[in-house]
Amino acid sequence: MKALILSIGDELLIGQTVNTNASYIADKLTEAGADVKKVVTVGDELDEIVTDIKAGLKNYDIVIATGGLGPTHDDITREAVLKAFDTRLVLSETVLEDIRERFRKYNRQMSPVNESQAMVPETAEVIRNEAGTAPGFWIEQNKKYFACMPGVPHEMKLMMDNFIIPKIRSLKKSGGTVSKRLNLLTTGIPESTLYQRLIPLEEIIEDAKLAFLPNVYGVKMRITATGANEADADEKLIRIEQRMRSVVGRFIYSRAEEELSVVLGRLLKERTLTISVAESCTGGLICDEITNISGSSKYFERGIIAYSNAAKVEILHVDEDLIAAKGAVSEECCAEMAKGVRAISGTDLGLSITGILGPTGATTTKPVGLTYIGIADSEKVVVKKFNFADNRINNKKRATHAALELVRRFLLGIQIEP
Amino acid sequence: MKALILSIGDELLIGQTVNTNASYIADKLTEAGADVKKVVTVGDELDEIVTDIKAGLKNYDIVIATGGLGPTHDDITREAVLKAFDTRLVLSETVLEDIRERFRKYNRQMSPVNESQAMVPETAEVIRNEAGTAPGFWIEQNKKYFACMPGVPHEMKLMMDNFIIPKIRSLKKSGGTVSKRLNLLTTGIPESTLYQRLIPLEEIIEDAKLAFLPNVYGVKMRITATGANEADADEKLIRIEQRMRSVVGRFIYSRAEEELSVVLGRLLKERTLTISVAESCTGGLICDEITNISGSSKYFERGIIAYSNAAKVEILHVDEDLIAAKGAVSEECCAEMAKGVRAISGTDLGLSITGILGPTGATTTKPVGLTYIGIADSEKVVVKKFNFADNRINNKKRATHAALELVRRFLLGIQIEP
Repeated sequence: MKALILSIGDELLIGQTVNTNASYIADKLTEAGADVKKVVTVGDELDEIVTDIKAGLKNYDIVIATGGLGPTHDDITREAVLKAFDTRLVLSETVLEDIRERFRKYNRQMSPVNESQAMVPETAEVIRNEAGTAPGFWIEQNKKYFACMPGVPHEMKLMMDNFIIPKIRSLKKSGGTVSKRLNLLTTGIPESTLYQRLIPLEEIIEDAKLAFLPNVYGVKMRITATGANEADADEKLIRIEQRMRSVVGRFIYSRAEEELSVVLGRLLKERTLTISVAESCTGGLICDEITNISGSSKYFERGIIAYSNAAKVEILHVDEDLIAAKGAVSEECCAEMAKGVRAISGTDLGLSITGILGPTGATTTKPVGLTYIGIADSEKVVVKKFNFADNRINNKKRATHAALELVRRFLLGIQIEP
Repeated sequence: MKALILSIGDELLIGQTVNTNASYIADKLTEAGADVKKVVTVGDELDEIVTDIKAGLKNYDIVIATGGLGPTHDDITREAVLKAFDTRLVLSETVLEDIRERFRKYNRQMSPVNESQAMVPETAEVIRNEAGTAPGFWIEQNKKYFACMPGVPHEMKLMMDNFIIPKIRSLKKSGGTVSKRLNLLTTGIPESTLYQRLIPLEEIIEDAKLAFLPNVYGVKMRITATGANEADADEKLIRIEQRMRSVVGRFIYSRAEEELSVVLGRLLKERTLTISVAESCTGGLICDEITNISGSSKYFERGIIAYSNAAKVEILHVDEDLIAAKGAVSEECCAEMAKGVRAISGTDLGLSITGILGPTGATTTKPVGLTYIGIADSEKVVVKKFNFADNRINNKKRATHAALELVRRFLLGIQIEP
């Protein structure tokens, strides 16, 4: 099934808005087994949109359009659909009731403009909007398919997930096979090492497809398995995951696209453990990540951003002589920081980090990127050395992720060294 | 000058990569006065790329392509250019020397594959790559223009800024008018209020165009002025900026697309002032923003993430009875936090924040979003009350920005209340 994505809106052509809708749709379509061949972005110009819809349906099996379905004068996608499919508007009672209900719920006055959004192309099946007033449309013609959705990302996403993807899966089902996807999120291991450990690959993934998607936080492994039906594809994914975990399991922190701070927060809550943090080089990013999670006050007690040596000495009680002898960026100082923040906070765990994240700050013996991360509990303190080789902002992110991962492994008793 | 942007690469069609290159190019082209009519994204398929280049040059004045210029087998844009323009490859000594120089600089071994990147289409003008090995190309044919650049964002951006935009400006110059753009970054004022204060708009902006571009941090005002030449457009922009500043000047923190943390850092350095921070609800994000700037250790001394009441009392010396009486989210507690962090750090300024950023934590008298931000110097402490009405993550960002802005206004002696 060859697909074209048609993005509509002047804001995309002047560079005001990044087209994240297209990549969301492309990702979902690919997962559902469709083959996205082209993305076309055009402005709010009627003739251009009509031409692109017609050309799209001629050259591809399905065209998915977004944008231009709002209630204002420059929203002309609905009109373009009428022209492209030579149909007319009819009132949809379902949509009218959806819109009325939405206005009742928010206690707002409906205008005639809103009511007019209940007028839909006669040949279209309505895609109801769970998060806004403009409905989407689905049209089938000569074994080709056309969908259009509003450009508001969260409205579009609900329509993709709840209507279009199931529709495409059911269309494909009649054709034969079904594809399903699993994402395993790893951190602390380079893409090349991950790959080497998975050799011989075909014994592990059978005939499934495996993509390595690296970013600053780690490598996502995307496995796409195809089966005779959903259960068949699911079973294959489970077998593959088990085999992958047997060789690189300790690097996998999520199979549900969860952020590491979510995974770690759940671990701490399950074990009713508390944590405090002493940061130097990351400058607050570790605390920020931890507190992005609602409910983190249950396990996060305090953080000390000990940027100056004075702060390390005065608040964390790191020995002044130790800093003079070993430097603030040292295994010894890092250990003292972890023990210190734990002691003053009365938490179960103390996490610490000290390093040189650049671009300045390097010395003859300590290069940019050198970083120590430490974790202390009531019995011991563990410090691990890292070298980050990216720019300042990315080094902060990498170091933060490495720190959260160190805590996760410490709690799970997973080997910390690679 | 009608433009088409052609983005090339399979990674864009499977949703792995968001097409930020297209929005960067669209923004720059629009600023230079070109009219972007369409963005087309295709995969690494030779015939498709050739077809799109030819169609683009037929229907538009200029086609700007990115991607597929690397040294591996799936990089086929150069081959497509040869086919589309019916030309052949010749060796560019300039490019070869650029590549050699790059390998010398990084002390790496050159491979024949890298050398082959010095082969360029005979009819093309080379766009030198200041940040990588693959050159870009510029081709003129029958008064139409074609450019292609690597897809690596920072390589592409250098080529856009240093070659393509000047080229387009010089092409347009012969045609008549010149457009120039100014971005004024504001914060702490809603789009609607900003708009009202600028009425009557035509007396302020003359015949220029003004766009309000809001995001979570504030509203960017983008002014595009057109003149007979560059100097003429520049003069118009200066007049407009002066008039705008006379009505909304105190909300403008940058005219150079600088982040607020950069502006604030410069202010602190110029005045040789130091700052410490006591954060509750923002959980480290303020310290993180401040320390994103290289050299921030010159003015940032320490931060206390006093998430628990115990931390507020033990480290910042906030009175326990005050917290019991007024609550941790109160003007009084906020003032004590600012004074406390300043006192223990010995800095010139102490910044504090306490609030409820949601989704949980509201009480009968204190709703989600209620936040106090305080700033203390040797003479006084100022506390301002805010209500943020977004989700948790965005509230953290909004509150952080409001805190940095409060310090900026405090230092400049600008009125703090709207």
